[in-house]
Amino acid sequence: MEVSARNSLKGTVKHIVEGAVNTEVVLEIAPGVEVVAIITKSSAEKLGLKEGKQAYAVVKATDVMVAVD
Amino acid sequence: MEVSARNSLKGTVKHIVEGAVNTEVVLEIAPGVEVVAIITKSSAEKLGLKEGKQAYAVVKATDVMVAVD
Amino acid sequence: MEVSARNSLKGTVKHIVEGAVNTEVVLEIAPGVEVVAIITKSSAEKLGLKEGKQAYAVVKATDVMVAVD
Amino acid sequence: MEVSARNSLKGTVKHIVEGAVNTEVVLEIAPGVEVVAIITKSSAEKLGLKEGKQAYAVVKATDVMVAVD
Amino acid sequence: MEVSARNSLKGTVKHIVEGAVNTEVVLEIAPGVEVVAIITKSSAEKLGLKEGKQAYAVVKATDVMVAVD
Amino acid sequence: MEVSARNSLKGTVKHIVEGAVNTEVVLEIAPGVEVVAIITKSSAEKLGLKEGKQAYAVVKATDVMVAVD
Repeated sequence: MEVSARNSLKGTVKHIVEGAVNTEVVLEIAPGVEVVAIITKSSAEKLGLKEGKQAYAVVKATDVMVAVD
Repeated sequence: MEVSARNSLKGTVKHIVEGAVNTEVVLEIAPGVEVVAIITKSSAEKLGLKEGKQAYAVVKATDVMVAVD
Repeated sequence: MEVSARNSLKGTVKHIVEGAVNTEVVLEIAPGVEVVAIITKSSAEKLGLKEGKQAYAVVKATDVMVAVD
Repeated sequence: MEVSARNSLKGTVKHIVEGAVNTEVVLEIAPGVEVVAIITKSSAEKLGLKEGKQAYAVVKATDVMVAVD
Repeated sequence: MEVSARNSLKGTVKHIVEGAVNTEVVLEIAPGVEVVAIITKSSAEKLGLKEGKQAYAVVKATDVMVAVD
Repeated sequence: MEVSARNSLKGTVKHIVEGAVNTEVVLEIAPGVEVVAIITKSSAEKLGLKEGKQAYAVVKATDVMVAVD
């Protein structure tokens, strides 16, 4: 399935923290560059996420803000 | 100002496409790894965004989805 | 690619309204039940959307609100 | 109250899973077509949601992505 | 219609900027406290928004970030 | 850090409800005008949020809906 979200960043699952309803997934998308996702526990199970597995961080362009120092 | 969004990815403005209301900003956050943001034109002007400028892609963890092949 | 978003509603493209930056896509997901998506023009082109084409409305569960009369 | 969100899909509450902070609500918006919403527990209580009750799945058009096979 | 979004801030329409697809609406929710909304042009027309009209800024709690200096 | 989000409403932390994964933060942004934010517990700790502390409710304009009676 190809999704309209403009950002699809290839990475590796580095860390998973399972909560009651939500699960926190840390993806390494480049050496030392991590992205944190919070998805539902059932979605994490459906995708079979495990540390070391290849996965994508998918983000709509309108959900990305820009900041400057 | 420090924001609660979990993801604050440091990068460089690589490309800016200005629209009537929105502006598309492409940030390079690692060699060959780009993030596309769509923000309002007035925000882009307020932040003084220019190609080559250092900026951050800021994304809430709940706005990041995970996908697998 | 399988995405963590909980809602993936199969439908047919019924109507497309192309704007300068954004494109409005109307999907029929059941007889008389339509969902409106606004995605970037480039995403709509990338996906090759045309009226009559099969497509999915993908929505994160946390982006769905509930209302009552 | 009438809200600016473009999608207001009429349905019936089919299933409710209450969590500590969040509640998962499954709405049937057409025969066999379900939408999952995750809202705060207090909102679910405020709306008096119960299985069988009529409710709407409300989604902003910019929160709907489109996908193709 | 009562919506599950936790924030429903009563205010007055102070300013409207109509774009090709989107419309920017500035609401004054307390003396000197303004909230900017960007909604689709058709939604703004559907709601009959005009300067001076009473309206609510509706925001899901999960869409509100917190920042500190 | 200056963020592209259009709404940055100055207020005071009035109430904090800590959950397992998420924390609910109530900010008073004007006399009697409150905004509820749900952020991750770790973000709330990182920002050192306490009742009485000055903080901002930060919301993207595209995440603000408008409603009328």
